[in-house]
Amino acid sequence: MNKLNNILVINGPNLNLLGKREPNIYGNKKLEDIENNLIKLGKNNLYDIDCVQSNYEGKLIEIIQNASRFHSGIIINAGGYSHTSIALMDALKFFNKPIIEVHMSNIYRRENFRHESYISKVANGCICGFGDLGYELAVYSIIKLLEEIN
Amino acid sequence: MNKLNNILVINGPNLNLLGKREPNIYGNKKLEDIENNLIKLGKNNLYDIDCVQSNYEGKLIEIIQNASRFHSGIIINAGGYSHTSIALMDALKFFNKPIIEVHMSNIYRRENFRHESYISKVANGCICGFGDLGYELAVYSIIKLLEEIN
Amino acid sequence: MNKLNNILVINGPNLNLLGKREPNIYGNKKLEDIENNLIKLGKNNLYDIDCVQSNYEGKLIEIIQNASRFHSGIIINAGGYSHTSIALMDALKFFNKPIIEVHMSNIYRRENFRHESYISKVANGCICGFGDLGYELAVYSIIKLLEEIN
Amino acid sequence: MNKLNNILVINGPNLNLLGKREPNIYGNKKLEDIENNLIKLGKNNLYDIDCVQSNYEGKLIEIIQNASRFHSGIIINAGGYSHTSIALMDALKFFNKPIIEVHMSNIYRRENFRHESYISKVANGCICGFGDLGYELAVYSIIKLLEEIN
Amino acid sequence: MNKLNNILVINGPNLNLLGKREPNIYGNKKLEDIENNLIKLGKNNLYDIDCVQSNYEGKLIEIIQNASRFHSGIIINAGGYSHTSIALMDALKFFNKPIIEVHMSNIYRRENFRHESYISKVANGCICGFGDLGYELAVYSIIKLLEEIN
Amino acid sequence: MNKLNNILVINGPNLNLLGKREPNIYGNKKLEDIENNLIKLGKNNLYDIDCVQSNYEGKLIEIIQNASRFHSGIIINAGGYSHTSIALMDALKFFNKPIIEVHMSNIYRRENFRHESYISKVANGCICGFGDLGYELAVYSIIKLLEEIN
Amino acid sequence: MNKLNNILVINGPNLNLLGKREPNIYGNKKLEDIENNLIKLGKNNLYDIDCVQSNYEGKLIEIIQNASRFHSGIIINAGGYSHTSIALMDALKFFNKPIIEVHMSNIYRRENFRHESYISKVANGCICGFGDLGYELAVYSIIKLLEEIN
Amino acid sequence: MNKLNNILVINGPNLNLLGKREPNIYGNKKLEDIENNLIKLGKNNLYDIDCVQSNYEGKLIEIIQNASRFHSGIIINAGGYSHTSIALMDALKFFNKPIIEVHMSNIYRRENFRHESYISKVANGCICGFGDLGYELAVYSIIKLLEEIN
Amino acid sequence: MNKLNNILVINGPNLNLLGKREPNIYGNKKLEDIENNLIKLGKNNLYDIDCVQSNYEGKLIEIIQNASRFHSGIIINAGGYSHTSIALMDALKFFNKPIIEVHMSNIYRRENFRHESYISKVANGCICGFGDLGYELAVYSIIKLLEEIN
Amino acid sequence: MNKLNNILVINGPNLNLLGKREPNIYGNKKLEDIENNLIKLGKNNLYDIDCVQSNYEGKLIEIIQNASRFHSGIIINAGGYSHTSIALMDALKFFNKPIIEVHMSNIYRRENFRHESYISKVANGCICGFGDLGYELAVYSIIKLLEEIN
Amino acid sequence: MNKLNNILVINGPNLNLLGKREPNIYGNKKLEDIENNLIKLGKNNLYDIDCVQSNYEGKLIEIIQNASRFHSGIIINAGGYSHTSIALMDALKFFNKPIIEVHMSNIYRRENFRHESYISKVANGCICGFGDLGYELAVYSIIKLLEEIN
Amino acid sequence: MNKLNNILVINGPNLNLLGKREPNIYGNKKLEDIENNLIKLGKNNLYDIDCVQSNYEGKLIEIIQNASRFHSGIIINAGGYSHTSIALMDALKFFNKPIIEVHMSNIYRRENFRHESYISKVANGCICGFGDLGYELAVYSIIKLLEEIN
Repeated sequence: MNKLNNILVINGPNLNLLGKREPNIYGNKKLEDIENNLIKLGKNNLYDIDCVQSNYEGKLIEIIQNASRFHSGIIINAGGYSHTSIALMDALKFFNKPIIEVHMSNIYRRENFRHESYISKVANGCICGFGDLGYELAVYSIIKLLEEIN
Repeated sequence: MNKLNNILVINGPNLNLLGKREPNIYGNKKLEDIENNLIKLGKNNLYDIDCVQSNYEGKLIEIIQNASRFHSGIIINAGGYSHTSIALMDALKFFNKPIIEVHMSNIYRRENFRHESYISKVANGCICGFGDLGYELAVYSIIKLLEEIN
Repeated sequence: MNKLNNILVINGPNLNLLGKREPNIYGNKKLEDIENNLIKLGKNNLYDIDCVQSNYEGKLIEIIQNASRFHSGIIINAGGYSHTSIALMDALKFFNKPIIEVHMSNIYRRENFRHESYISKVANGCICGFGDLGYELAVYSIIKLLEEIN
Repeated sequence: MNKLNNILVINGPNLNLLGKREPNIYGNKKLEDIENNLIKLGKNNLYDIDCVQSNYEGKLIEIIQNASRFHSGIIINAGGYSHTSIALMDALKFFNKPIIEVHMSNIYRRENFRHESYISKVANGCICGFGDLGYELAVYSIIKLLEEIN
Repeated sequence: MNKLNNILVINGPNLNLLGKREPNIYGNKKLEDIENNLIKLGKNNLYDIDCVQSNYEGKLIEIIQNASRFHSGIIINAGGYSHTSIALMDALKFFNKPIIEVHMSNIYRRENFRHESYISKVANGCICGFGDLGYELAVYSIIKLLEEIN
Repeated sequence: MNKLNNILVINGPNLNLLGKREPNIYGNKKLEDIENNLIKLGKNNLYDIDCVQSNYEGKLIEIIQNASRFHSGIIINAGGYSHTSIALMDALKFFNKPIIEVHMSNIYRRENFRHESYISKVANGCICGFGDLGYELAVYSIIKLLEEIN
Repeated sequence: MNKLNNILVINGPNLNLLGKREPNIYGNKKLEDIENNLIKLGKNNLYDIDCVQSNYEGKLIEIIQNASRFHSGIIINAGGYSHTSIALMDALKFFNKPIIEVHMSNIYRRENFRHESYISKVANGCICGFGDLGYELAVYSIIKLLEEIN
Repeated sequence: MNKLNNILVINGPNLNLLGKREPNIYGNKKLEDIENNLIKLGKNNLYDIDCVQSNYEGKLIEIIQNASRFHSGIIINAGGYSHTSIALMDALKFFNKPIIEVHMSNIYRRENFRHESYISKVANGCICGFGDLGYELAVYSIIKLLEEIN
Repeated sequence: MNKLNNILVINGPNLNLLGKREPNIYGNKKLEDIENNLIKLGKNNLYDIDCVQSNYEGKLIEIIQNASRFHSGIIINAGGYSHTSIALMDALKFFNKPIIEVHMSNIYRRENFRHESYISKVANGCICGFGDLGYELAVYSIIKLLEEIN
Repeated sequence: MNKLNNILVINGPNLNLLGKREPNIYGNKKLEDIENNLIKLGKNNLYDIDCVQSNYEGKLIEIIQNASRFHSGIIINAGGYSHTSIALMDALKFFNKPIIEVHMSNIYRRENFRHESYISKVANGCICGFGDLGYELAVYSIIKLLEEIN
Repeated sequence: MNKLNNILVINGPNLNLLGKREPNIYGNKKLEDIENNLIKLGKNNLYDIDCVQSNYEGKLIEIIQNASRFHSGIIINAGGYSHTSIALMDALKFFNKPIIEVHMSNIYRRENFRHESYISKVANGCICGFGDLGYELAVYSIIKLLEEIN
Repeated sequence: MNKLNNILVINGPNLNLLGKREPNIYGNKKLEDIENNLIKLGKNNLYDIDCVQSNYEGKLIEIIQNASRFHSGIIINAGGYSHTSIALMDALKFFNKPIIEVHMSNIYRRENFRHESYISKVANGCICGFGDLGYELAVYSIIKLLEEIN
């Protein structure tokens, strides 16, 4: 079944700016670069990786809803919505397959309001503080999780 | 006046999944089934019932804004936005006619962050924990409220 | 089995004053009027409805304890005790049949200390803000619940 | 450089209703009136003022993202999102030019949940409680700030 | 109208022990002595003073409910219930005449859980820390209040 | 002095249901069985043990008040009132002899609102989590305490 | 000893405005009227009453410091400083004679930040909610306290 | 009426140091410069502007008390007292004409204890984060408010 | 099986000082005396009781880890670590046999930071406030628990 | 430079009472004695020590403001203002030379509201609990600090 | 430089039990297995990996202190100490090279007291919820970090 | 009595690193240098000073326990354990002679979790923010305290 080898990488608000602003903080890789890198990494492991970004909470919810039909796992960096969106958490709860949360910065070293994440409450695992490397780790680990299940 | 007999039923994020996921929890009625049922219930009482669902907070705000011109009452289940959206509450405050809040599950038996609802602060009445029956109770009671006003 | 068609409506402290004080706020229906109305509503649906009111927390506990032998469901408006009585909640927990909580006013629009209810933690469903109509909705919905069970 | 004389005025959820509902509270100037007035005020000072309103958090984020290319300053009234949107705050943090926050009502005299604003944490200055006059003060002061920079 | 010269003095839980236990703390006047003293004080001012004590929250509620027919003012020391009983507060809210709260000890110098009183939220005035003298001050002041009203 | 060998065992709200509901949780010993067992245990140690249960907070207060004349020690399981009744704590404070608090379940493994007990603040010792064995331990230890005093 | 019959009445910030602003709330007696009334009341009881008002926290501290040499008791309404001044509380702690706290309004029915008073922590008794009558009650009761001591 | 054209600008503790310390933070305009600038600005608009500064809370209270006789509006920067002085807020509440609060820095970007201001609770509008320009905006807006009233 | 009759009594930090300091508070029995007494009590009931004390959190963790091989139950007084050590709680969670928590003093009558115990969250039962008698009660009750299991 | 050898010792509210009240707590050294002692101590180390006390927050602010011209270091015991005065803290922040905070009692063993000090947030070092010896330690250490700087 | 290729893997309290207890939760790999696996993984990448475990907070501190001389990076799972040990965090702060935090379970889905980690405040990145795979991800990512630095 | 002239200086976790890491923050004196300096300072005053450091909480507890036999006073810098160790505080409570707490940095200017110290609750006095000079001040003051006692 091809479908089970499809992973969806979801990026939330402001992550489309990656590499375009403040490269000293967020690195100078653009989101497209990161996504292409992940797609290639997927291919090497015989997984199709689809990438999507939206600044709309509602759009992100629908992306997640549709994922359960077409994808076998989700990697998500929900940006600022991570800390405020119960609706996003609810959408992920309906997705009964592996979910990995990624944050590029170490959110526990930032403001208090970034320490609690609704996504963490439904994700299998969380990876934060590794910049774009975090996405690679997520791909690597979600493949492991999927292999254990299958 | 025909207009005054129009009720708007608004469903928020993830409620489009009703009946499609985890039927043991949320029942196996789809949202369309519930909506059709309400429309029929409305007709029996000589009320037109319009139903709308969106996963977008902004869309829900605009639906509420437009309702004041065309509808005489709102029944709303704002899902996860109930607990986080001041903007949605503000939109409802501009609507000067009856508002009924519905939740399918008993939110007071769930996680703490679901105990406080911004919608409750502006609704006339709240009904929660009755599954899809809650919507019927809401229709029944909003008609009573409308009849008292008229 | 006749017993299974018995519903108990319990009213807590100060609800015996209904219709006697501040009719502009609480309506001018007396508690007896409301109760008689519910009894009639029950009869139309082939249910016996017993009504009881007490201002004593201890009495309310014993009423609930006895209900499990004679009644198939409880509708309760525990008034001020809703927010302070763990003992009442514990009594309800021993009652293994449907429980509906009713509040005449929308408690979420009142003082903060009325926002949290111990009764809500054990009730199947909650209805608040509909005045005496709330009791009717409760009867209607508890019958539905009982029919689902039987 | 013409670009540096472009100011963007952003209004968030429900502000499209200005002048249409409850004129006794919010005045009877419509949002268009306010916007036209600001545009004129801008012209008198040789500044182009662009005005935009959206009820969508995601749309507002993208408006802010695009602003950094075309505008030299932002005046923003984020309405109800001010108190809940970390994502909006993050978008503004990427905008490295003057930001003025405006609220028509004095949010510190309203409910507690309106006292804390995420926008305030990234704005240069805040103006609240002056009705539509607040926007004029904002235009006046952002021009001053821009002149100091240039 | 004789009725308007009737004052009800209500004492709550454990106050029946006054003068019987720990006289060094609570003085050695028994509750009867205090009550008789107040009755005499009332007579001197042409007021009938009725005194009642109960350890039952429910009984206290009913005493207050009945008072509205027969008494023109209430002086109440609700003891430990002051800090925990919303139901008692609700009963007092239905009584539309002067209410004076008395505490023999200064509750603000005791444990934190005695600093907040629900009775204070509905009483006209509060007197605490004066031992049995506090009741006399309450009688004196409620007569003044009644004279201002009449 | 015979009096000094009298111990009072007080059980609060809902404990009259012991052995009648949910035997898998609370065991299938009825309260009478537990009480008879304790009376026998007392006799073996030459102590009279009186047992009493009430669901009324007011009644429990009066039982405690009277105990100081007839009993040399109190064993109390105040059930749900443990966490809400300052009045009960005050009554116990007037009792100047040994007090042992018992809870059948380990209240520290249950909901947060059961972690703080007003009774604990005035009891000599607390025993919780041992089911009906806890009462035996309490009898055993109060006898030890009484023997140390005498 | 003449000295022991001297009572000091201290009024804090804004109380010099009594009777001059918002007479519907604070009555139309000026502070001088109240003070003269108290002085007369004192004389009738053979007590000298000195009255002083200041809007300065530092001045109030020094007034209290000096009082210990010349006065046998203090009646104080510290106005807004009641809730914020530890320094004022410390000054009163050095005064080893009776202290009565007065508030004209019932501070427990006002904003939360007025519910806690540092003065209450060191006063013998507190009287609030009786308007200018409160001062009379304070004089009456401090005389009683002084007579008990002497 | 000349009086109605008098505006009082009040500066609180430490603002007399403006321009004398840390010019990189607070600019190098001295308070006198700012005040003279405002006076001139007032004159251009046919308003008399009086300026006053004090480091004494009590003095500030009396300045505000006197203002109600001679001034038609107040512009106030209460410095550190903004966050701690209920007494100052009370004084302003007695002033029944327009009040504008100014802070030179954006207090919402500073320590938590500067986020809540008692002055904000009684001011018509608040302006913060604009340095000395904030005072000009305040003058401009208070004139607008006064013109609306007259 | 001899092994199942082995009980481990663990004492944490500072309990080695028992009987050596402040005998008026903690009695003058040394820890050895208490331990010897328990060993004898065990023998009488055909149980081997091993006693161990350490001031090292790490040592206590390893004692608990090893206990699962050699002991059928643990009695633990973790002293000051009770309130701060999640690691100790985790070690106990791996021990799948009866655990009894003992405190010599009634920790609920002491400072707030002693009211919450991590040990309570994993212990079967808790005994506190009985001095060294508490250990005896613990031995008595753990034997009962073990007999129920076997 | 003579100026750099000038140290200012500031004492706040109620410290003028030292040695005059409750000598058992605060010792019987008067403030003058302590100050003279410090002056002598200063002289021995070739430092001029100026001493000042005020009960006025405003006065203390101005003393600190002036100190920056004439003194090379500040030793301050702000008494009750330590815990409530942001304005005092702000004044100290403008003083760019060594600041030592002194408290005679150990404030961390007293009421909770004395545990947090605004002065601590700007002082170089804090010394508390040593009675008048604390001032000597402060002089000794500020001289060390000044010598390190110079 | 050989030294720079040394990575230290530190495991804290109770992690020595891995694979020995509750394999259904923690998997059946023993700690040695995990460690050997990591060593091998390191070798493949030309890194020496040293592994150490201790249940002693003090020991863990010293292990970290020594690491700065011999190791180029730390991977740490501090178990229960993560949430309580400031001392451990301080030791890590002195280590000026990459630190990765690992938790086998997703701590954000467990009890509240596990949501905040002192280690997170000083780690470069955090990985949790991946079981023993988390250590592999940590090795992989710390090598990446080290390569970026070198 | 020679014993009474023995002072114990205890340093807790990570203080063995003094002078070895980040000399710009903690100075470049090693712990040995500081200790030797104190020993010399003691000798000059005819006091023996013993110095000890440990990173183990358990070890520190035992050092304190033993100190009561051999030492007349304790100077302690408990480092990170200051804020988390109730067990350490308990050990100090058994030591009935002078205790001085030292912190090299001003802990009140650092993270919130460093503001509360359990050591402060049992120490006679606290000295913080003076670097290694703080230890000298502690020696100086403990000698003063000991001389007062003797």
